[in-house]
Amino acid sequence: MDFEHSPRVTELRNRLNAFMKEHVYPNEHTFAEQVQKNRWASPPIVEELKARAKAQGLWNLFMPGVEHGGAGLTNLEYAPLAEIMGRVFWAAELFNCSAPDTGNMEVFARYGTPEQQKKWLEPLLEGRIRSAYVMTEPNVASSDATNVELSIRAEGDEYVINGTKWFATGAMHENCQIFIVMGKTDPNNPNRHLQQSQVLVERGTPGMIIKRPLSTLGYWEEPHGHAEIVFDNVRVPKSNLLLGEGRGFEIAQGRLGPGRIHHCMRVIGAAQRALEYACKRVENRVAFGKKLSTQGSVREAIAVMASKVEMCRLLTLRAADKMDRVGNKEAKDLIAMAKIMVPQLGFEVIDMAIQMHGAGGLTEDYFLAEAFNYARWCRIADGPDQVHMMALGKQLIQELSAL
Amino acid sequence: MDFEHSPRVTELRNRLNAFMKEHVYPNEHTFAEQVQKNRWASPPIVEELKARAKAQGLWNLFMPGVEHGGAGLTNLEYAPLAEIMGRVFWAAELFNCSAPDTGNMEVFARYGTPEQQKKWLEPLLEGRIRSAYVMTEPNVASSDATNVELSIRAEGDEYVINGTKWFATGAMHENCQIFIVMGKTDPNNPNRHLQQSQVLVERGTPGMIIKRPLSTLGYWEEPHGHAEIVFDNVRVPKSNLLLGEGRGFEIAQGRLGPGRIHHCMRVIGAAQRALEYACKRVENRVAFGKKLSTQGSVREAIAVMASKVEMCRLLTLRAADKMDRVGNKEAKDLIAMAKIMVPQLGFEVIDMAIQMHGAGGLTEDYFLAEAFNYARWCRIADGPDQVHMMALGKQLIQELSAL
Amino acid sequence: MDFEHSPRVTELRNRLNAFMKEHVYPNEHTFAEQVQKNRWASPPIVEELKARAKAQGLWNLFMPGVEHGGAGLTNLEYAPLAEIMGRVFWAAELFNCSAPDTGNMEVFARYGTPEQQKKWLEPLLEGRIRSAYVMTEPNVASSDATNVELSIRAEGDEYVINGTKWFATGAMHENCQIFIVMGKTDPNNPNRHLQQSQVLVERGTPGMIIKRPLSTLGYWEEPHGHAEIVFDNVRVPKSNLLLGEGRGFEIAQGRLGPGRIHHCMRVIGAAQRALEYACKRVENRVAFGKKLSTQGSVREAIAVMASKVEMCRLLTLRAADKMDRVGNKEAKDLIAMAKIMVPQLGFEVIDMAIQMHGAGGLTEDYFLAEAFNYARWCRIADGPDQVHMMALGKQLIQELSAL
Amino acid sequence: MDFEHSPRVTELRNRLNAFMKEHVYPNEHTFAEQVQKNRWASPPIVEELKARAKAQGLWNLFMPGVEHGGAGLTNLEYAPLAEIMGRVFWAAELFNCSAPDTGNMEVFARYGTPEQQKKWLEPLLEGRIRSAYVMTEPNVASSDATNVELSIRAEGDEYVINGTKWFATGAMHENCQIFIVMGKTDPNNPNRHLQQSQVLVERGTPGMIIKRPLSTLGYWEEPHGHAEIVFDNVRVPKSNLLLGEGRGFEIAQGRLGPGRIHHCMRVIGAAQRALEYACKRVENRVAFGKKLSTQGSVREAIAVMASKVEMCRLLTLRAADKMDRVGNKEAKDLIAMAKIMVPQLGFEVIDMAIQMHGAGGLTEDYFLAEAFNYARWCRIADGPDQVHMMALGKQLIQELSAL
Repeated sequence: MDFEHSPRVTELRNRLNAFMKEHVYPNEHTFAEQVQKNRWASPPIVEELKARAKAQGLWNLFMPGVEHGGAGLTNLEYAPLAEIMGRVFWAAELFNCSAPDTGNMEVFARYGTPEQQKKWLEPLLEGRIRSAYVMTEPNVASSDATNVELSIRAEGDEYVINGTKWFATGAMHENCQIFIVMGKTDPNNPNRHLQQSQVLVERGTPGMIIKRPLSTLGYWEEPHGHAEIVFDNVRVPKSNLLLGEGRGFEIAQGRLGPGRIHHCMRVIGAAQRALEYACKRVENRVAFGKKLSTQGSVREAIAVMASKVEMCRLLTLRAADKMDRVGNKEAKDLIAMAKIMVPQLGFEVIDMAIQMHGAGGLTEDYFLAEAFNYARWCRIADGPDQVHMMALGKQLIQELSAL
Repeated sequence: MDFEHSPRVTELRNRLNAFMKEHVYPNEHTFAEQVQKNRWASPPIVEELKARAKAQGLWNLFMPGVEHGGAGLTNLEYAPLAEIMGRVFWAAELFNCSAPDTGNMEVFARYGTPEQQKKWLEPLLEGRIRSAYVMTEPNVASSDATNVELSIRAEGDEYVINGTKWFATGAMHENCQIFIVMGKTDPNNPNRHLQQSQVLVERGTPGMIIKRPLSTLGYWEEPHGHAEIVFDNVRVPKSNLLLGEGRGFEIAQGRLGPGRIHHCMRVIGAAQRALEYACKRVENRVAFGKKLSTQGSVREAIAVMASKVEMCRLLTLRAADKMDRVGNKEAKDLIAMAKIMVPQLGFEVIDMAIQMHGAGGLTEDYFLAEAFNYARWCRIADGPDQVHMMALGKQLIQELSAL
Repeated sequence: MDFEHSPRVTELRNRLNAFMKEHVYPNEHTFAEQVQKNRWASPPIVEELKARAKAQGLWNLFMPGVEHGGAGLTNLEYAPLAEIMGRVFWAAELFNCSAPDTGNMEVFARYGTPEQQKKWLEPLLEGRIRSAYVMTEPNVASSDATNVELSIRAEGDEYVINGTKWFATGAMHENCQIFIVMGKTDPNNPNRHLQQSQVLVERGTPGMIIKRPLSTLGYWEEPHGHAEIVFDNVRVPKSNLLLGEGRGFEIAQGRLGPGRIHHCMRVIGAAQRALEYACKRVENRVAFGKKLSTQGSVREAIAVMASKVEMCRLLTLRAADKMDRVGNKEAKDLIAMAKIMVPQLGFEVIDMAIQMHGAGGLTEDYFLAEAFNYARWCRIADGPDQVHMMALGKQLIQELSAL
Repeated sequence: MDFEHSPRVTELRNRLNAFMKEHVYPNEHTFAEQVQKNRWASPPIVEELKARAKAQGLWNLFMPGVEHGGAGLTNLEYAPLAEIMGRVFWAAELFNCSAPDTGNMEVFARYGTPEQQKKWLEPLLEGRIRSAYVMTEPNVASSDATNVELSIRAEGDEYVINGTKWFATGAMHENCQIFIVMGKTDPNNPNRHLQQSQVLVERGTPGMIIKRPLSTLGYWEEPHGHAEIVFDNVRVPKSNLLLGEGRGFEIAQGRLGPGRIHHCMRVIGAAQRALEYACKRVENRVAFGKKLSTQGSVREAIAVMASKVEMCRLLTLRAADKMDRVGNKEAKDLIAMAKIMVPQLGFEVIDMAIQMHGAGGLTEDYFLAEAFNYARWCRIADGPDQVHMMALGKQLIQELSAL
């Protein structure tokens, strides 16, 4: 057992931190201004910094293998890097490490045909296009993936797609070129896990209507956004099928583990930064005649905030380590623990940091309000906490009651 | 002791509920659309419904006395009405019961000269104009009102005002005609509570620059908004002084009690509605093969949510009752208790309701996200929780340690 | 709506408080010493103070009617009196208001034959004997009363009782003369609510073995205790049946409401006293060079503790009021809310008071540790919180989803 | 970074677990019976199992060095072993790893003269005697060690000791032969950290009166207990001084780190066992017609309990690791985090396990109630949480506000 970073990770952390300090923190205001001008386009500052990061080799760090140009880091090695990226809401994309592209690239790498990889994985790995993962539906509890109702009907050489999806993250982005769409090709299959398939739909395919962006707690998360999408007799060639008919559920399962851990690490980064902001704030703010930092209640709060951040970090690293050793499926207990605890505790830390900033903490003058939204959203993204608690509880009762 | 509403309150509640059902809930979407078109103007639907409510006598219900056309209700009688208004974020204004106008009208009624009342109180009571209360400053902990730094310097027949304020709620509204501004006329007075004065500044006075709106958790709360305002050598006649030089702190204290209780009641209304939405949702949503409402964990959550709402309601009513009997100042312990507990518990209830709605609960398709923002903001508005806890704790220790 | 006590209640509160101050608080140490000498006997101080309280008319205050010598108070009137009694763990008995005798007296008054009332209710009302309610079984989840397995078999003129019970509160007391025993006379009745009956067993009946006392969190709660009881072919005459065969469940339901509210009020009394102790403690304790009471964190904690106590008090009074107006059955929603929230919040208040007392707070030098145990035990007594949450949640979803 | 145990630790864990399974769990009832017969004597089962453990080399595992016969384990290696011991309240002593002897042995090893080591360290290491650490005083906040008031006055060749101490853990044990006593030799020294000294007092020294045992939450923790001790002109030779006059504070500081971590690991062991009991319970208990383990609320609770245990474990291991790498003093931030979070979260886990056991969970039929007491007591032992939060918060604000 050992809690120290390896030399390689230490080196990467140092370089990432330097990049953040030099290029990202000073440009937070620029990003906000550029986005305001052109909501769903990639802000110039993003493209500029992507080029810089790529040139420095801070690129595709998330990608486990090296065969597709990934950095070849383990989950345990990548986790502390994702934490650093999480300190600024839009930073992960600079290193081509942002959801949902990361998960989608893994899907292409693992399940795509050479043609599909050539056409979509390559430009994604190069950061030339963006992608969406179209899974959640407004009318069913989509955390149970077998519930999805979108119809994918085979007809000759084509699939015909009909239905409504929402919370397609990234789909508002005008450079989102490819949509991975989950639906049912065989809705009457007695095996509920073989009814689903995933097909690719290109931007601009007739009948695919990006209906509207969705906000979360007042945030529209430009420029990627979350979209509601209507599929009205959308036709794609059969070669757009991923992996095989009836294997959509399998792909969905394989995609989830790392994504959850990445979310956790980014929430931790946001919470750590909120803690640091809180410390600066209380050290520099006077109320009722003394610095806030001399208040016992403030010190107690800071101590608890830091303890929560550290516990979240350790839990997530432990989950990443287990994924590396025994695989995502076997590590599902620790992934679930991280998914349950980190967004909740991170949310509490950020909430307290806001409180210490007074009314200003709620505004866009600080990164806190947006981080608050991110942590809150993560308690629902990839399945609400309750779904993970139920599954984890069931598994633990089986295991521990048999001891 | 008796927990039943009086016949008068019951009758008013019935009429208010009917109004909400007939006119407000069906127009929530209309309001959103109209606001989007013209952010800082009063949406036509609001003006239409104000006229209707006024015609039905559902008007100025908050106003304790009857001499200025108030409804003559006690705080205890008004509280359950404010709760109903709180179910829709913009509803209180329909009954001319929205902050900060309510507090400002009380200030005019209590401290204004006949001329000031004629000019400003009358149109406010008639709902013809709106007003702002300009107190909070970005650079000092304004929850301690003695900290404010804005300068109000006497010069001949005029006051000259210089400084920066923010979180002037309502100041973005294009019909906000009068600004009550707190500053220091005598910053060197050894008595820190006699340094402040409050003066009136009319919209359009040269040098008063409405610099920008401020968001809270991503919400801009149109059309009233929260503004940052710069005062650059703003000149007003001395007749614009309220009550007297050095009496600004006194006015601030007198203004606060009812406003806090009104916020609490509105949060309770939002939380009660969130609870009702949650019940409908879980009864109509199926996950993993059964209705959410049959899940033990969902039932437990609903039970706790309802218990929290009821406790908040009782605590606030009790505070209102004490205000009626012994005055706002003597009732400050119970006002503080309500201010501490209600936004926190209301926030928890709304948070849980969001969770039960899944990703949709975060969007603007429901009222939940905005209510979440309102409850969170209330934990800072009129002083962060911590300030009230400190004062209440100090008072209680004195009282109870002497028993 | 009105939050003031009636003159009668105010007068009774004053007299009760005076009694506590003069006779009970100064004798807490005496009680502890006497109990230590003779664990399961009534301590002389209790008998002495019972006589005093009876002489002052502070007697049977819990008893709703007047026909059996009750004080004729409503639940709402009695609640604030029970709170005062709850400040000292053994005080309720002094006023003949202690569980389980109160519930048992109500059972006799409501369901007993004149002969049963003559023989058992009279001496109970006079405080000459004590009683037990024998319901919970170790092997089944007894919060679902239909689960009880104890067998009550009719045989000629007698019932023959077999089975094991535990947590028979009061059964260890050497003056516990009568045991109300719940079991099944008709275990195969298709209506699960008609299988049960309740019969009376006198102390000393052959085959009824008081097997052992049970502790809760290390407390044995002498002299009444909680007993495990084995029934080994215990025979009682059929005239010992209460109400009728198959009506045991009905009696159990009727008995529960007031008892739960009484527990809540006593927990509130304990929590209020803990708050007062905490205030005295922090005002008189110095750490790191200053009084604890000047610490911001201490003040915040006191404020929250007091708010919790007040919320619990109001919720319980509201439940009592509803019971008075519409009956225990209709008031079950508010009874459940109080049962869920009060022991939990009271526990948190006492826990914090202990923390403020340091290690001493855990010892028997203060009443805090025993109060902590009482509040914790109340989260399980009369059904664990979860059972009440489930039932309340189910009811609320039905009601509110239909709005 | 690596979360796997080393082969040595794995091997020791296996042997310890086997020992617990074979010898400790089956004897919990025996221990309780023996203790009841002779409260303050070492139960025969303890002596028997100590011999067995010693023979197997499961002995003095806590002792960092090897020069005094310690096992030579790092804190990180010892931590998972202490966790296993913590599963049974009295198990650590079997391996000569119980507080306060562990801390006292470290004091002797680090600060004792060869004579002192010969006389006291040797028999302690062999498990032949027990010891007490006499620090806390009833009248001052002893978490600030500079507050202690006990007088140690030099007089010729002797020290004369006067004052009152309490919560001297282990002092009730009839084989507690040596008491390390903290007091002031130089109360007027302007440097508050040089006023204290620590001296050794042997059992039976005239004037040292073991006044009474103290309970915590109803538990007397026989046979070691917590004692109140009066020193009435107790005289010891000057050779009984530890380290040097004025160095008592220094010894106190050096002693604390490992002890806190050991407490944390034992609490984790208790919480882990509580979790396992809870899983067995819910799998084997039926309520309202179905197994508790099929209830969603139960599964959610189990998931949260397990997550808390895992977070606590990781945090404590991380603290142990930092102690090993940079020393106890530098690791004080992580030690404080563990001390703050682990007893609190462990308490919550055990509390929930009790709830799942119903009334039985509060009794001595399960280990849960005693574990509950232990976790609660740990929130005060070695300084209440608040003291650690204050110190940690202060340190973090300094560090992080300077970033």
